[in-house]
Amino acid sequence: MGGDHGPPVTVSAVAKVIQSHPHVKFLLFGQSQELHFWLKQLRLSEHPRISVIASHDDVAMDDKPAVALKNKRQSSMRLALESVRDGRANACVSAGNTGALMALGRMILRMLPGIDRPAIISSIPTLQKKPVYMLDLGANVDCDAKRLQQFAIMGNELCRLLENLDRPRVALLNVGEEDIKGSEELRSAHALLQQQPAIFYQGFIEADQIFSGEVDVVVTDGFTGNNVLKASEGLSRYLAEKIRAAFMRNLWTRLCGLLARPVIRAFKAEINPEKYNGASLIGLRGVVIKSHGSANIEAMRFAILEAIEQSNLTVPELIGRRLAQLDDERI
Amino acid sequence: MGGDHGPPVTVSAVAKVIQSHPHVKFLLFGQSQELHFWLKQLRLSEHPRISVIASHDDVAMDDKPAVALKNKRQSSMRLALESVRDGRANACVSAGNTGALMALGRMILRMLPGIDRPAIISSIPTLQKKPVYMLDLGANVDCDAKRLQQFAIMGNELCRLLENLDRPRVALLNVGEEDIKGSEELRSAHALLQQQPAIFYQGFIEADQIFSGEVDVVVTDGFTGNNVLKASEGLSRYLAEKIRAAFMRNLWTRLCGLLARPVIRAFKAEINPEKYNGASLIGLRGVVIKSHGSANIEAMRFAILEAIEQSNLTVPELIGRRLAQLDDERI
Repeated sequence: MGGDHGPPVTVSAVAKVIQSHPHVKFLLFGQSQELHFWLKQLRLSEHPRISVIASHDDVAMDDKPAVALKNKRQSSMRLALESVRDGRANACVSAGNTGALMALGRMILRMLPGIDRPAIISSIPTLQKKPVYMLDLGANVDCDAKRLQQFAIMGNELCRLLENLDRPRVALLNVGEEDIKGSEELRSAHALLQQQPAIFYQGFIEADQIFSGEVDVVVTDGFTGNNVLKASEGLSRYLAEKIRAAFMRNLWTRLCGLLARPVIRAFKAEINPEKYNGASLIGLRGVVIKSHGSANIEAMRFAILEAIEQSNLTVPELIGRRLAQLDDERI
Repeated sequence: MGGDHGPPVTVSAVAKVIQSHPHVKFLLFGQSQELHFWLKQLRLSEHPRISVIASHDDVAMDDKPAVALKNKRQSSMRLALESVRDGRANACVSAGNTGALMALGRMILRMLPGIDRPAIISSIPTLQKKPVYMLDLGANVDCDAKRLQQFAIMGNELCRLLENLDRPRVALLNVGEEDIKGSEELRSAHALLQQQPAIFYQGFIEADQIFSGEVDVVVTDGFTGNNVLKASEGLSRYLAEKIRAAFMRNLWTRLCGLLARPVIRAFKAEINPEKYNGASLIGLRGVVIKSHGSANIEAMRFAILEAIEQSNLTVPELIGRRLAQLDDERI
């Protein structure tokens, strides 16, 4: 039910994946009537691999997490997370309220051993072939050194699994590359990571290096990560609008635009922001993928594919195993 | 002497401004021989409005501020700042080491009353006609509520003067618009600004709104501001490279690129990153403009023009007066 568009987008994305992935089953949680309406529109009523589970409440996009926890005991979000906890589903995808998804995820699925709170991680395109994984993108405003270290370990593991990399290059985001830069917490995290043999630690990087592909995992606190991500969205919109305006200025520029359209389209396909939809709530005992609220059908499809891949790879189990292993080594 | 290129860029930019601004005089601080060489190249030897002041030391780009303060007592940076302190110059422009410029600026020019530390402020283009002013862009990693309030007051004043706005819309950068979002310090700053009648305070904004032009001044701590700024630089480079690659793919796309070149050029002129070169070290008792280290001649020219405008408007004096006034009102 979540996101700016709700079922028209989510159900349409399900319709695509149900065709391309013959072994995937869907449980759709939400208002039964609305979901059935959209399934009917897409000729998917009574599809053997789609079940609708009626919820009698929904978490609104502006509900405080506490409200979602205490007052909405039958929300679609809660029921979906419970289905993962109970083994009826392998992964949960939501375009809904991020704060509520985190709080409910934490309560229902619980955290992996040694992890305090989930972090939000997503891949971001770079100038190299492989994307970079960045966390935390907004789950934790305050992060001490220990938490940043946990993020590094989890991000490292996720990147290893999803990109099939042996030793991802992990870096801490800072305002300079020298040891003396940044807050005390950041410098402590730097010291911790330098002593962490499980991680191929590269030291500090600055934010302009995120997109260059020099490293595979960028670790930062949720406040900075969220601001960097949102500023990038804002800048992309600004540049897209300015280039559109440049091509719309007069008849000649419009003609140029028409001719250049296939090139612009190839460019868009290449940077394809939809492909990067679907952030993971990492650190939970289960796969939870958060889609951007404004996701269109294609973007939602990518979020679902991300959930399938992560549950196929049993990402939470493997991260948990690695954490236990590191813990043993310490003892 | 500062920046990635040094005198070839700085002296060439001076050559342009000396022609366009017949009342402006330049003092060039640096290695005498090198400066005279470039002046000669540009046929500016013995120009009546250009003086070379020989320095016997330079602050390196990677010198720690403490080194610049203690060991380099005859550096070009220091001599330039002293010329502002002593009234021999109205403004100082540097493309050198930011940390050293701040530390030396603080020591030599001193702070305006009530201000602890300088902040770095720059204008950033938006989808609206007017730019947005953002601070702090990296001078202060840790900022308490009081300091964020000082930034808001100084940013408000600078924007009022430079954009000729009566009541700039001032906002605090946060990861959400609700009162409960963000760190304790940020929420305290929010409360302080809500009670500040001198400021037309708009509350929290998120980073994607920076470029939309919804507000005129964005206040944040130096760590976040620096990361947002550098991420924007990195993303711009990424997108520029991707669009270039799209046009270079084959003969047909190259032809499209050739045809679209005037449009792309108009787009570049419109977003013109050079125009936004020249950040101010606000809060000092004197105009100090920091150019990007990688500035080209055109970008350096804009930094110099910024210095001229701010000294014509007597920005530090007016900000100081406003601070004193607010202080009186409080009593």
